[in-house]
Amino acid sequence: MAGGITIDAKEYLMKTSKELDGPIRKYIGDEEPANLIEASRQYPYAGGKRMRPAMVLAAAGAVGGDVSKAVPLAVAIEYIHNFTLIHDDFMDGDEKRRGMTTIHIAYDVPTAILAGDALFAKAFQIIADLDVPDRNMREILQYVSQAVWDLARGQEMDINNERKIVSEDVYIETIRLKTSVLFAAAAAGGALAGGADKRTVKALHEYAMALGLGFQIFDDYLGIAGDPAKTGKSVGNDIRKGKCTVMVTHAMRTIKDKRLLEEFKSILGNMKATDEQTLRARAIMEEAGSIAYGRQLAQKKVDEALSKLDVLAPSEYKDFMIALAKYAIDREV
Amino acid sequence: MAGGITIDAKEYLMKTSKELDGPIRKYIGDEEPANLIEASRQYPYAGGKRMRPAMVLAAAGAVGGDVSKAVPLAVAIEYIHNFTLIHDDFMDGDEKRRGMTTIHIAYDVPTAILAGDALFAKAFQIIADLDVPDRNMREILQYVSQAVWDLARGQEMDINNERKIVSEDVYIETIRLKTSVLFAAAAAGGALAGGADKRTVKALHEYAMALGLGFQIFDDYLGIAGDPAKTGKSVGNDIRKGKCTVMVTHAMRTIKDKRLLEEFKSILGNMKATDEQTLRARAIMEEAGSIAYGRQLAQKKVDEALSKLDVLAPSEYKDFMIALAKYAIDREV
Repeated sequence: MAGGITIDAKEYLMKTSKELDGPIRKYIGDEEPANLIEASRQYPYAGGKRMRPAMVLAAAGAVGGDVSKAVPLAVAIEYIHNFTLIHDDFMDGDEKRRGMTTIHIAYDVPTAILAGDALFAKAFQIIADLDVPDRNMREILQYVSQAVWDLARGQEMDINNERKIVSEDVYIETIRLKTSVLFAAAAAGGALAGGADKRTVKALHEYAMALGLGFQIFDDYLGIAGDPAKTGKSVGNDIRKGKCTVMVTHAMRTIKDKRLLEEFKSILGNMKATDEQTLRARAIMEEAGSIAYGRQLAQKKVDEALSKLDVLAPSEYKDFMIALAKYAIDREV
Repeated sequence: MAGGITIDAKEYLMKTSKELDGPIRKYIGDEEPANLIEASRQYPYAGGKRMRPAMVLAAAGAVGGDVSKAVPLAVAIEYIHNFTLIHDDFMDGDEKRRGMTTIHIAYDVPTAILAGDALFAKAFQIIADLDVPDRNMREILQYVSQAVWDLARGQEMDINNERKIVSEDVYIETIRLKTSVLFAAAAAGGALAGGADKRTVKALHEYAMALGLGFQIFDDYLGIAGDPAKTGKSVGNDIRKGKCTVMVTHAMRTIKDKRLLEEFKSILGNMKATDEQTLRARAIMEEAGSIAYGRQLAQKKVDEALSKLDVLAPSEYKDFMIALAKYAIDREV
């Protein structure tokens, strides 16, 4: 692995997100009806980390491509991400996003569904017009449309799994579909926009897929082991909600003492559990090695991601991709 | 115009719809989660007129192309149509479709939204894999993604217009977006899959756009002037709901007698209007020439559609396209 990388992934993301402010405002014109247009602009215009478009641009640059030609694809991927957020926020009954009232409340439910649909369509309009060879455009479309199909499956699985403890395999498959596939399509799409060969495209796809898993598993880890003052989440939150994570599935299959397991299960998913009880559940997981297991699995996924980057020649973009992978499991929020 | 056309549009549609039963079942495999897969299959598998895919195939054949290569695109267009039906049925609160309970009721609301999203994604996966030159695939994608963007705008406009009488221009623009654009994309896409030149693609796009308007305007006409025993709709239905049509906008701008206009407006949109009152409203429209105006405008759109077909050499497919246009304004249901 390249040594001496000095890129700060968080700073780099902030810079890229700012640079995308202009392009992200270029594709949704002042058409009728005004309420739908406004609603479809709200999430993408509001900023956020914009990790997926940053991935598109980094991949295009890392394979030696013209990054400017990948900018429209970066916007398209962000629109797709925002389309899923709008629909998910409605399904999940969430009221706030990026400090603003969610679309289904600020406008109404039909407008939220249609704003999502419209962003989805706009993303494919942008892809159709990409300034890349027709063959590459086709392959980008294959990756991106497959990702959206998978995103819908992942969200449905996530809903099906609610208040259930599924197996680790099912959990990993769910977060792969819900989180990783769009990251992976962003990386593969960026590489294709940059003119990469098949082998490189595949490697970057695998990099981002593993990275997405590492990110999500570490997020779950922070939910249990993180500092509530920094994460903004109460430690008991995920335990009370009975959130399935690799730590919970580890505890379930590892704890052999029946009474201990029953005690753990009686707290997990109990919305009325006291702080004392949730701390007790965490101590049980700690004792079973489940929290360390979660941390290690995130590390393993990130190592796997990093190993895929050997195909790339050194560049600032490669450095960012390395820094982003390390950042995934070295953060407090 | 070609004389002696013996194709029965309705029979031809039924035959094509049957032929599509197989292909339509080919693209949604047995993946997880099963409830989402089942839900996404319900509408497309249930049959229906399948006019849009028939348009794809006819256009491909009419330009001398290999119709078999257009079959996947026909399926994709039908999936897109079904995606919009699933979302619209939820927004409109409809409980039945093709004799079955609608998805948001038979399953649940999130599953309906995701089944729509999934069909949408699957359509673009199919387009990405079309066995046509990359350049043509790109142009097909441009037409289809533009159509979906427009469909979302049309549905939102339709909701915005509810219980309002808008201008004829706004009404026509709404039905253009809600109905015609996907017909037009089907025709243009089929022509491109068949290898047509730009001029022919454009002509077939215009044909289907005008035809879609003719169909919808004639549907509205049947709602007022049709035989309730055949249409299955009570004559007073559209009047009680205050449905905006070109006939209503004609009456509004044509009736100069203030008292008569007030009487008409007092019945229109009055859910409690008696049969006598709705018949009176219809008589007022009849007297004002508004019903004849609707019939004539539908005829005008169909004539416009037919005039675009001169670019085509004679064929069975061209004959169907002519027959379909004539059928649009020569039916009782």
